[in-house]
Amino acid sequence: MTFLQEVVDILLAYIVESFDRETKVIDFHYPNELLQMNNWELQDEPATLDDILISCRATLKYAIKTAHPRYFNQLSTGLDMVGLAADWLTSTANTNMFTYEVAPVFVLLEYVTLKKMREIIGWSDGRGDGIFSPGGAISNMYAMLLARFKMFPEVKEKGMSSVPRLVAFTSEHSHFSIKKGAAALGIGTESVICIKADESGKLIPADLERRILEAKQKGFVPFFVSATAGTTVYGAFDPLIAISDICRKYNIWMHVDGAWGGSLLMSRRHRWKLDGVERANSVTWNPHKMMSVPLQCSALLGLMQNCNQMHACYLFQQDKHYDLSYDTGDKALQCGRHVDIFKLWLMWRAKVIHPLANIYTFYCFNQINSDDSHFVSNCSAENFQILRTEFHTNVCFWYLPPGIRYMEDKEEKKKHLHKVAPVIKARMMEYGTTMVSYQPQGDKVNFFRMVISNPAATFEDIDFLIEEIERLGQDL
Amino acid sequence: MTFLQEVVDILLAYIVESFDRETKVIDFHYPNELLQMNNWELQDEPATLDDILISCRATLKYAIKTAHPRYFNQLSTGLDMVGLAADWLTSTANTNMFTYEVAPVFVLLEYVTLKKMREIIGWSDGRGDGIFSPGGAISNMYAMLLARFKMFPEVKEKGMSSVPRLVAFTSEHSHFSIKKGAAALGIGTESVICIKADESGKLIPADLERRILEAKQKGFVPFFVSATAGTTVYGAFDPLIAISDICRKYNIWMHVDGAWGGSLLMSRRHRWKLDGVERANSVTWNPHKMMSVPLQCSALLGLMQNCNQMHACYLFQQDKHYDLSYDTGDKALQCGRHVDIFKLWLMWRAKVIHPLANIYTFYCFNQINSDDSHFVSNCSAENFQILRTEFHTNVCFWYLPPGIRYMEDKEEKKKHLHKVAPVIKARMMEYGTTMVSYQPQGDKVNFFRMVISNPAATFEDIDFLIEEIERLGQDL
Repeated sequence: MTFLQEVVDILLAYIVESFDRETKVIDFHYPNELLQMNNWELQDEPATLDDILISCRATLKYAIKTAHPRYFNQLSTGLDMVGLAADWLTSTANTNMFTYEVAPVFVLLEYVTLKKMREIIGWSDGRGDGIFSPGGAISNMYAMLLARFKMFPEVKEKGMSSVPRLVAFTSEHSHFSIKKGAAALGIGTESVICIKADESGKLIPADLERRILEAKQKGFVPFFVSATAGTTVYGAFDPLIAISDICRKYNIWMHVDGAWGGSLLMSRRHRWKLDGVERANSVTWNPHKMMSVPLQCSALLGLMQNCNQMHACYLFQQDKHYDLSYDTGDKALQCGRHVDIFKLWLMWRAKVIHPLANIYTFYCFNQINSDDSHFVSNCSAENFQILRTEFHTNVCFWYLPPGIRYMEDKEEKKKHLHKVAPVIKARMMEYGTTMVSYQPQGDKVNFFRMVISNPAATFEDIDFLIEEIERLGQDL
Repeated sequence: MTFLQEVVDILLAYIVESFDRETKVIDFHYPNELLQMNNWELQDEPATLDDILISCRATLKYAIKTAHPRYFNQLSTGLDMVGLAADWLTSTANTNMFTYEVAPVFVLLEYVTLKKMREIIGWSDGRGDGIFSPGGAISNMYAMLLARFKMFPEVKEKGMSSVPRLVAFTSEHSHFSIKKGAAALGIGTESVICIKADESGKLIPADLERRILEAKQKGFVPFFVSATAGTTVYGAFDPLIAISDICRKYNIWMHVDGAWGGSLLMSRRHRWKLDGVERANSVTWNPHKMMSVPLQCSALLGLMQNCNQMHACYLFQQDKHYDLSYDTGDKALQCGRHVDIFKLWLMWRAKVIHPLANIYTFYCFNQINSDDSHFVSNCSAENFQILRTEFHTNVCFWYLPPGIRYMEDKEEKKKHLHKVAPVIKARMMEYGTTMVSYQPQGDKVNFFRMVISNPAATFEDIDFLIEEIERLGQDL
């Protein structure tokens, strides 16, 4: 108990430090360097508890401070105290979600929370089903499994050789987990047809219909459309109503991957972006992203049917003394399933749930997009170029260093620009002052993607990031 | 911070209580009852932090005390303080395993630990690869994916329609996740051929070879054999050397599902049970079972190749400034991956890792199997019947109440005996004194399965369980 309390003291100090802007986001070292800086190897001799405390401190010293107000690197950032407390309680309870027998409270909390989430989606009376899974990629894979099982239930016993060639459709801007899922499920990545997106990153419904017809003409069976609510890079929302019209017309399962944007369903002001979601057959929604629930917390909403059931008789005994509908484990692909529900439930109770996206992102967007440059200090809007003029949850932009800004050769300019973001990012990490993500997309060379899901971030932190990019990149 | 400290105080009190034999293992209530006992529904009004603390207390009040010395219900039991501290630290660090960029230390610790585990398996110089996954079922699914990809790499792009009919083999006593995986991957449960096990639960190699030949004659392609090291119910170890001879002869991927028994590799005295494991192509090993690492912690060891890679350019940028081999995320089916490594690594450092199985199980086995009844109190060996005489990691037995013991009609006796364990288990939970699992297996009617992976359990706790079964069942 003394030992545990000592660890808690270390953790509390770390939390205080993480929220302090004077602290670095990261004390960066290259892998080989870091491997040698501390003795991380497993020893044959046991360490003392004091040594264990030293290991805890060393681990935190080199960790990324994901709670830091200037950490913008991923879709999941920030650290909520109620969520953290809930996660500590979950670890202490140390149980599994497979049966009511071993997780009575957590199973009930999952039940009430999933029901509420379905109500919010707009499924009448919260009807349906769902499960918390280890991340959005697995949730999306569940959706594909359900769609396939609904259309061809025999696939469970007989495999893919018993069914015609299935094809799935998703936007070219969708998350890579759709293809990953198709590869795993024996559908194959070539059977995932990428639909064109418009300039702002939204799927073009006319192209979807065209590709469905094309597939049908080839004798393929369209079984699954995955629309994205909040794309990973642009933060764009596919037009769900138009997509659902097409899905209904051709009798195709409609999935909404709202891993990133699903949380906007909780926002009175932004929920219109997901209009039509109530027509979906399944929805992925990750509270660990925009709702700042600690990692991991991802839900797949939709009727699970008996798609994954195997009736293991050592676990799901049918002669138990309680209502077996609460033994939810057999719905899962997993056997043991981590308790991911409590942190979401407790945060929801505390009402600390407020998807951001909103005013901070809007501020960032305006700072970068502004013509009349009301940037603080030496920042200037002409140094930045925004990719899209439509406002989404993510702000994507290039930084144009002076040496590149006035280049005339377009190809040359592109080639140089492509190298700018990686260098700035590397310097950022070496200084450890802030972190933001970059990537190319289609024919667009490397650009920064700014997302603000960290409740600790302020306008000043956004300004800091913009200035820091300029400071680190102006010699390029 | 005050709030977090208050939660910690609640948790520390719960831990002390959990280890106290005077406390109930469970304060059991039926689902509908429990739903009404507390206001678990999500409210529209925010709760105060005091209310949140009350919710934490209520959740723990009705939770199963999985650390309790008399909790024998699952393969994962007990609560290790170093492991718990590590899990609290993990929650606080709140990051994802996909890249070195966001989890530098954890990625390195996964690297050193997987290497050590491969060395222990006996792969020369720890060569190879692996990943921590959300549980043994997913680890087994990875193994099946790898086997399929190795034999038919085109399946990733072209799906199952591009390959011949694949068949997998596993013992009739193996874990249900093999079939679940086959269903998900589009292979189909009918393509999982169940091999006969002997009376003690071990796969019969001759039957394996016969079924492989049979499948080949039908034109099917055997691609995967899953041997089990520690079956879920009996705790039996399949003969790995004989199985690997067959796999080599027919060029089939050999997987060892050591989710339960793999930890015996750490035991000088018991590791012979896994002789031949070094010949496997992949191994599932769950430190969260016999090694008492908090849930979840499961490893799949084996070459991942580029089976699951999708090269998402927003995450696995190829122009980063560090050694990209440490960006392990693209090996996974998941995108975000929870940090499961730190608790294992820290426990290993502290050398609190000592797979049990051993002397306590042996004691239990002898108590129940003994002819000369050196049971304490009113227990008598003739009231119990052990299923197998060979000693494994699990002790499986029937309790024979007086009313059944001398029944002459064998069928009638069986019918009655089948109902005994469920009634005793229900009473056990209502009293809340202890918990143990039961199930049927093949033609064996419901019997108890006793596993001791809880480091807090003593000989007296085993005696307590035996006496409690007799106390609760003698009127049946």
